[in-house]
Amino acid sequence: MAILAIDLGGTKIAAAIFSQQGSLLWHQSFLLNGKKGGEVAKFIQTIITDLLMSPQWKQEGIEAIGIAVPGVSYRHNDTVYAPNIPGWENYPLLQDIEVVAAGIPVIIESDRSCYIMGEKWMGAAKDVDDVIYIAVGTGIGAGIISGGHLIKGYNDIGGAIGWLALNRPHSDEYKNCGFFETYASGAGMQKLAKQYINDNTLYKGFFSDQANIASADNLIAQYQIGDELAKKIVGQAIVYWGMAIANLVSIFNPQKIIFGGGVFGAAAILLPYIKAEAVQWAQPVSMAQVELCMAQTGSHTGLYGAAFLALKTINPHNLRNNVS
Amino acid sequence: MAILAIDLGGTKIAAAIFSQQGSLLWHQSFLLNGKKGGEVAKFIQTIITDLLMSPQWKQEGIEAIGIAVPGVSYRHNDTVYAPNIPGWENYPLLQDIEVVAAGIPVIIESDRSCYIMGEKWMGAAKDVDDVIYIAVGTGIGAGIISGGHLIKGYNDIGGAIGWLALNRPHSDEYKNCGFFETYASGAGMQKLAKQYINDNTLYKGFFSDQANIASADNLIAQYQIGDELAKKIVGQAIVYWGMAIANLVSIFNPQKIIFGGGVFGAAAILLPYIKAEAVQWAQPVSMAQVELCMAQTGSHTGLYGAAFLALKTINPHNLRNNVS
Repeated sequence: MAILAIDLGGTKIAAAIFSQQGSLLWHQSFLLNGKKGGEVAKFIQTIITDLLMSPQWKQEGIEAIGIAVPGVSYRHNDTVYAPNIPGWENYPLLQDIEVVAAGIPVIIESDRSCYIMGEKWMGAAKDVDDVIYIAVGTGIGAGIISGGHLIKGYNDIGGAIGWLALNRPHSDEYKNCGFFETYASGAGMQKLAKQYINDNTLYKGFFSDQANIASADNLIAQYQIGDELAKKIVGQAIVYWGMAIANLVSIFNPQKIIFGGGVFGAAAILLPYIKAEAVQWAQPVSMAQVELCMAQTGSHTGLYGAAFLALKTINPHNLRNNVS
Repeated sequence: MAILAIDLGGTKIAAAIFSQQGSLLWHQSFLLNGKKGGEVAKFIQTIITDLLMSPQWKQEGIEAIGIAVPGVSYRHNDTVYAPNIPGWENYPLLQDIEVVAAGIPVIIESDRSCYIMGEKWMGAAKDVDDVIYIAVGTGIGAGIISGGHLIKGYNDIGGAIGWLALNRPHSDEYKNCGFFETYASGAGMQKLAKQYINDNTLYKGFFSDQANIASADNLIAQYQIGDELAKKIVGQAIVYWGMAIANLVSIFNPQKIIFGGGVFGAAAILLPYIKAEAVQWAQPVSMAQVELCMAQTGSHTGLYGAAFLALKTINPHNLRNNVS
């Protein structure tokens, strides 16, 4: 009795098999190598078929399949939207997967919903019914459980916190990915670093050497030793991370906010500064009750979440951590 | 078969009897006249006792009692917090009401949760499962239903959107009631108007005459005819109402946002400007799907909501608009 999970990213696919108790029995990653549209679906079909046919998992018995997509999974027409996969505007992924699933139930969810569900199953959100996962990587999104219910929204695009408005005035720069993402995502900070170097020709710090990439990791390391570019960009991101946390705390009165994604990681050491900023703004009673912490399921969060959602399709009630 | 509803404000108590189908059979308001702590509870006890004992309602049969409080209703210890009623820090209101309720089920909820539930039962939120009520009066709060579930938070203080952080830098002015409330609530705008008059001694507009009170109604009327103070303060409020709406849209992907409270009212004519501001900031697909509208249950919203919540305690399933 096992669960098959797929976590699709913009450049790779991770696959895993879990026991129903949440043990990661097997996992592997596959590069997409520029595959597009139907090719990506075909690739997922092959991975699933190979696993279902392998003697080991055939004997174990795979009972459900969960898939995390980097974008939106629309319930009303069973299509997905994944901005980083060309041709996946309204792609009928469920239909493609059911062709190879041999009657096994399949569930497809947005990555951000899978992240919070992964932490709910086997991470920092265990036994907590009001909890938010903030994913800060190339972009920013949130998986939100409130009162034990996953927030999806009318058309499944809830949790799009990359669009949070946190400082006037509006600028056309925010039109593509939102204000918060412009200043506080990995890609956003990298773009701001480039702009800084162009605008400040006298800057002779770490990033003026073109060999030193302004990745979030490097920016945070340089922030700690006082590089002026890093101080400006990371300092600004801390303020906006804090204001965003404050807003989520005032709206949801959560017990925990969990940080994950490529940037947290390195940004974990910034949590005290982020909290200090949030405390200034948030509803004070709610703020005093919330715990800020790091994700526990690491780079497998999406796989855990996809598996947990799949498990719930076949076993909705007999689970310690019930979320509807 | 009827429902008794109480809507407690800072200065008055409204009471009503509803049929189970949502008809308002009777209602009346009572002034608090400065009553405090236990006196307020005693007053509510008297109102309830009189109604339960009246021949008409005795014959009809009151089956449940719902009470809206201007603050927080804590589930974990059945107390209420109402900042405008002296002595109601952790007041055991449920206990007091059950003394006179003669075994009839009693439910006590925050006013903001009652507002959205009132609109869900008999107003603009009927048949909608992702919907937000924004109450802008003296303060600002939100009642939120997401995926058919009322957002309460870990400790029942969710929806505190008066604390939304929408512009840097932080100032100590925001410590008492939050950034958004400072700039965009009725009390906030009135305070800003006073400040404006003090700071701009050359201002000779409508509000320089001390007889002209800077109420939200007056500010909005003067905004429309170009008074410079009103243009500044209402113009600023429009921006923050828009940014707050944008943030709720990006987070919840709601089908509707409903405006109510003392300020909306007059501010209803500002909805197109608020929407124009929100459109700039919000997740664009979600923003295109949301409808902004006015509450339909008028000044009785809290009563409708308290009654609906009470009705749900005795009849949780057989209701057209099921919310858990």
